Amino acid sequence: MPKDLVETRLKQARVARLATADAEGRPHVVPVCFVYERGTFYIALDLKPKNTAPEGLARVCNIRANPQVALVIDEYSDDWEKLWYILVRGRAEILADRREDEVCGLLKEKYPPYANGLLLEDAPLIRIRPSRIISWGRL
Amino acid sequence: MPKDLVETRLKQARVARLATADAEGRPHVVPVCFVYERGTFYIALDLKPKNTAPEGLARVCNIRANPQVALVIDEYSDDWEKLWYILVRGRAEILADRREDEVCGLLKEKYPPYANGLLLEDAPLIRIRPSRIISWGRL
Repeated sequence: MPKDLVETRLKQARVARLATADAEGRPHVVPVCFVYERGTFYIALDLKPKNTAPEGLARVCNIRANPQVALVIDEYSDDWEKLWYILVRGRAEILADRREDEVCGLLKEKYPPYANGLLLEDAPLIRIRPSRIISWGRL
Repeated sequence: MPKDLVETRLKQARVARLATADAEGRPHVVPVCFVYERGTFYIALDLKPKNTAPEGLARVCNIRANPQVALVIDEYSDDWEKLWYILVRGRAEILADRREDEVCGLLKEKYPPYANGLLLEDAPLIRIRPSRIISWGRL
């Protein structure tokens, strides 16, 4: 896949699936909303202590124990000629005390529910710096 | 999510994302087609030695090194009221010398390209036996 198409798809995708693993190497995977800006992925975390299921926190505990993550961006089609995916591997960090005003702005711009109050401004953010981006599929 | 809705969604979903991790706990994640039959997931592997990219094999090497896997089934919508996912954690096995005729039949029935010759009858199959199924989201 040409590099500019990869960049376009990473920018435009509405959802990715984030894989993490705990200290024992047990994988975990969830769908996530994200923004991709200057080669870096940002994922908001809306951690409300009282109504967060333990699984909602698994990605955070995993990243703290093991910062290696993988992210896949793809679109399924029953026409397999159209299938593609982009696999991103890299290291994640939890930005607990964040001052990433630009990232909040981008998240709100991309996802209207975030603009409508669902983005907790003081909640942690996951930042992923890719070490490798692999693309597969036809154009 | 009621158990019967979980079962229906697991049966009907066209795609899942499979997370594995290598012996060092580095996660990997790819979209996969699958069938879900009697509480077990089956994923075909079309390994053609000459045109398989190394990443095409990563899931297999990972499972051999570390059988713990996670699978997520979800559907993205910009209407976040509709979001849901089902996270499956369990153990995977590579069935290299398989005689799973029933599974081949189910894969061909669910995915026409498999019926049209894309299913290599003698290629390995991944079998995943769930240890835990967690669902999240509104109905």
